[in-house]
Amino acid sequence: MRSHYCGDLNTSHLDQEVVLCGWVHRRRDHGGVIFLDLRDRNGIAQVVVDPDTEEAFARADRSRSEYVLKIRGLVRRRPEGTVNANMSTGEIEVLAKDVEVLNTSETPPFMLDEFGKVGEEVRLKYRYVDLRRPEMAEKLRFRSRVTHQIRNCLEEQGFLDIETPILTRATPEGARDYLVPSRTHEGHFFALPQSPQLFKQLLMVAGFDRYYQIAKCFRDEDLRADRQPEFTQIDMEASFVEEADIMGAAEGMIRKVFQESLGVDLGVFPHMPYSEAMNRYGSDKPDLRIPLELVDVGDLMANVDFKVFSGPATDPKGRVAALKVKGGAELSRKQIDDYTKFVGIYGARGLAWIKINKRADGLDGLQSPIVKFMEGIIDQLLDRVGAEDGDIIFFGADKAKIVNEALGALRCKLGEDLNLYTCEWAPLWVVDFPMFEENSDGSLSALHHPFTSPKCTPDELEASPADKLSRAYDMVLNGTELGGGSIRIHNQAMQQAVFRVLGISAEEQREKFGFLLDALKFGAPPHGGLAFGLDRLMMLMTGAKSIREVIAFPKTQSAACVMTDAPGEVSQAQLKELNLRLRVKAQAED
Amino acid sequence: MRSHYCGDLNTSHLDQEVVLCGWVHRRRDHGGVIFLDLRDRNGIAQVVVDPDTEEAFARADRSRSEYVLKIRGLVRRRPEGTVNANMSTGEIEVLAKDVEVLNTSETPPFMLDEFGKVGEEVRLKYRYVDLRRPEMAEKLRFRSRVTHQIRNCLEEQGFLDIETPILTRATPEGARDYLVPSRTHEGHFFALPQSPQLFKQLLMVAGFDRYYQIAKCFRDEDLRADRQPEFTQIDMEASFVEEADIMGAAEGMIRKVFQESLGVDLGVFPHMPYSEAMNRYGSDKPDLRIPLELVDVGDLMANVDFKVFSGPATDPKGRVAALKVKGGAELSRKQIDDYTKFVGIYGARGLAWIKINKRADGLDGLQSPIVKFMEGIIDQLLDRVGAEDGDIIFFGADKAKIVNEALGALRCKLGEDLNLYTCEWAPLWVVDFPMFEENSDGSLSALHHPFTSPKCTPDELEASPADKLSRAYDMVLNGTELGGGSIRIHNQAMQQAVFRVLGISAEEQREKFGFLLDALKFGAPPHGGLAFGLDRLMMLMTGAKSIREVIAFPKTQSAACVMTDAPGEVSQAQLKELNLRLRVKAQAED
Repeated sequence: MRSHYCGDLNTSHLDQEVVLCGWVHRRRDHGGVIFLDLRDRNGIAQVVVDPDTEEAFARADRSRSEYVLKIRGLVRRRPEGTVNANMSTGEIEVLAKDVEVLNTSETPPFMLDEFGKVGEEVRLKYRYVDLRRPEMAEKLRFRSRVTHQIRNCLEEQGFLDIETPILTRATPEGARDYLVPSRTHEGHFFALPQSPQLFKQLLMVAGFDRYYQIAKCFRDEDLRADRQPEFTQIDMEASFVEEADIMGAAEGMIRKVFQESLGVDLGVFPHMPYSEAMNRYGSDKPDLRIPLELVDVGDLMANVDFKVFSGPATDPKGRVAALKVKGGAELSRKQIDDYTKFVGIYGARGLAWIKINKRADGLDGLQSPIVKFMEGIIDQLLDRVGAEDGDIIFFGADKAKIVNEALGALRCKLGEDLNLYTCEWAPLWVVDFPMFEENSDGSLSALHHPFTSPKCTPDELEASPADKLSRAYDMVLNGTELGGGSIRIHNQAMQQAVFRVLGISAEEQREKFGFLLDALKFGAPPHGGLAFGLDRLMMLMTGAKSIREVIAFPKTQSAACVMTDAPGEVSQAQLKELNLRLRVKAQAED
Repeated sequence: MRSHYCGDLNTSHLDQEVVLCGWVHRRRDHGGVIFLDLRDRNGIAQVVVDPDTEEAFARADRSRSEYVLKIRGLVRRRPEGTVNANMSTGEIEVLAKDVEVLNTSETPPFMLDEFGKVGEEVRLKYRYVDLRRPEMAEKLRFRSRVTHQIRNCLEEQGFLDIETPILTRATPEGARDYLVPSRTHEGHFFALPQSPQLFKQLLMVAGFDRYYQIAKCFRDEDLRADRQPEFTQIDMEASFVEEADIMGAAEGMIRKVFQESLGVDLGVFPHMPYSEAMNRYGSDKPDLRIPLELVDVGDLMANVDFKVFSGPATDPKGRVAALKVKGGAELSRKQIDDYTKFVGIYGARGLAWIKINKRADGLDGLQSPIVKFMEGIIDQLLDRVGAEDGDIIFFGADKAKIVNEALGALRCKLGEDLNLYTCEWAPLWVVDFPMFEENSDGSLSALHHPFTSPKCTPDELEASPADKLSRAYDMVLNGTELGGGSIRIHNQAMQQAVFRVLGISAEEQREKFGFLLDALKFGAPPHGGLAFGLDRLMMLMTGAKSIREVIAFPKTQSAACVMTDAPGEVSQAQLKELNLRLRVKAQAED
């Protein structure tokens, strides 16, 4: 219907007749002439409708915001003084000859440039209006472009795009499955996949050698800020590989995509063992843009006359750590109180601090509620953290887990609040993860998943599982885990050993993972892989504030779609076909 | 781990040391030497292990079928007389220096070259073994390649890849939805999409202009031979377009893919109105490779003294049609009986026929149980169908729907049985579909779906809906519907008119389609699109006998996965969280 996109017009089209189709973005009457800003996918062009073209003028006159118009007209240079240097089409305008109204529009629920006046719920309900905002549309266009770059990059490396099932069996990724009742198999349910993990491993056993898929995954979790019940994963797996092969391919892909899409060179990603990340940053996904580091001071605190410190300092599972903030002595009492509340979210029972107002011998010039306990060790302490005049030192003292989480989060918050960032992008690999983590009851869970290969023999694993490392690796960017993966177990005995450590009985192994154990005994190759969270990656790359901005039709935090009103009610007949009844209903009937 | 793929080796690698990884495809001992055919993704290479390399020999000697080996060795020319011209690697072999067993294998459930000895159920249970067969693996590799070509083709044309939700609201595509109980919204259910239809229309309303997605779709139907509960659609939609734009883009894409992947030039696709397809071929997806055509003979039969023919001939909803088969007089009584049974599947109560053994005036030389009724009209009949000596004419006489289905199916069966194909590929577009079809109770259903634009005004539609045509189009190849689409309704009044014709009350419209009706009133552009069945396309292109051959992990015809044993049972706790109970269980408890 059109000859050009509105947004593509420029002075190279001068004196050409063009046909444009689009939406009335703005309308102004000025000196008896109507100015229409016509918007389409590629941008906005100014259309001038003169009263001379009577019919066209009458139609333009009736047009309101978001009317859909088709306009035939002549491209001409804008009069001197009306050129708009901020628009790609700002040097030209289109003098309309014909105006056709393709569709009218009622007054939209909100004006595109006034979206801030309505809440997110209204914008989600009228998502098709909100997505017309150029900055929203651009995020999805960017996503489409980058997704295709990723595909090209993986195809070039010989990865095969293979689809795995959505209706499948419950997989043990740790989260809750979405279930789908089967009509033909009474009382049985499919599960929606939390990831294609086992299927991609089976594709390796089948000999496909290199697999990828941009795959929908599902988790029925209580949603936090940046979770969605369905999310998209860039999933890859390869055979006859070691860590360096997969990490190299994945790092190369991310580097290429940043280069091509953002013009950003991420450089070579440093590798950091998990233990170092926890010690220095209190996190297994450290934000390396922030120069703050946790420093262990437990040895100094073991004998201070302050139980809050000396207790954790002498507890094998405790930790006492300091976090020095350069220039932080300027923080107000109110700010410090707020940070104290903040670390409380992570279980910390307080936030001790020392301000170094003027460094001197002893306690001179130091301001702190706790400094009185430090008399004998204060010089050592200040030296160790490298404190200078004007700094503040925060302390965490508790179980190591709590100290790491609290000070790790505080570190990121301080980085943001005080704008301490030393660079725009800080990628790294975290490696050498423990194979297991301890639950509160002393049992063990897989830190990644039970198909991750340990760095030891099955016997060594079973003898002392808690201290064994795995062959897992996580890619971290700016404090966000972009992706994670591992070399997998390809040996049945090792897989069974891991299951035993996890307390999965032989019977349960057979029932839940029989097909995997079978596959491992018929010639499974060494293999490994990785999965990226595509939504998260897009959010980082576009600078979006919420994951919902990079998803066309996202769910709310209560896992609902306010536009289509999903989930919805279903009829008794449908339930009966599925051999189900609602529990409340059943009780009422009983 | 490897330096080369097994299948890539040739004489250009002579005298090079290579490292191969793969599976023992075959093992032979010959003259004290071990020959291993090592298989990987790209093919098979012959490895020779000499007793001189003691350790390697011992390991090769222990290796059995499907062991996973890593082999270091030297590429050398095969001795004269042992070259295998059927293998790409047939001129060379690898003299092993080292053999490493990466994994062992128990005797597999079936040998790859003896897969025919086991049933499909066993092959599906051990899918990861069955997929090792080179012809199976090649189908999925082909699918991956073609899918990427399709993406490239659509990206080049400016289509944006946008993901739509899997957890959504029931959509009215006619089939049964898969439901997903919501845990957070008690008694409410998501539905898995039967297609992204409404979402892609909303993306057009949002102004994305050109959308595509290779999308998973779901239908909980009783499975026929070539259906799967989940299937994959190449889904596209564009704004400010007419039929020719979408059909042109889609046809260009399919033509390009056939050219690039199969070296086949499909040429320009002919267009055929629905009414012509039904009249000439008894089908809206005619297989034009077969030269047989249905010929109307109702006018001739109106007055014959044979109720079976004269009845339908004078019934406005009846049809009497002839199907002449050149050389068909050679069909045996047994064959004709079989065809009579065959048309019975489609509701035909018999299959009348006339053999033209020797054409002569009157009934001379004609052999038929019914020819006696034809006395007055036989010459006209033979002329009309162009019968010659040695031909047979079959007849269908019943309601038009039954005649079309029965003779349409018979036409295809005869084409296959007698190998009447005149070409390898016969694509076409079927156009000018009726907007509605009549149900047995006289009510109307949408022939495509209720969002298809009719070729008339809302008033004309409501005045006489049954005879109105739609702006739909189907792409047909070799008697299979590859894809279908339409120009959609972009006007609220028209959409409401269609809903009214379908008997959907204003209240039900609001409840089920409120968000669509809203979207249509806020400036919906004219738009249309199309969706291809990717599985079906792959099946045709690879010549697969079943859709299950082009899907990595398909379901059986009872919608189950015998490998993972899905669907499976779930715990009472899980059901309780979802506020559900099994109906049987509930009854037992009551």
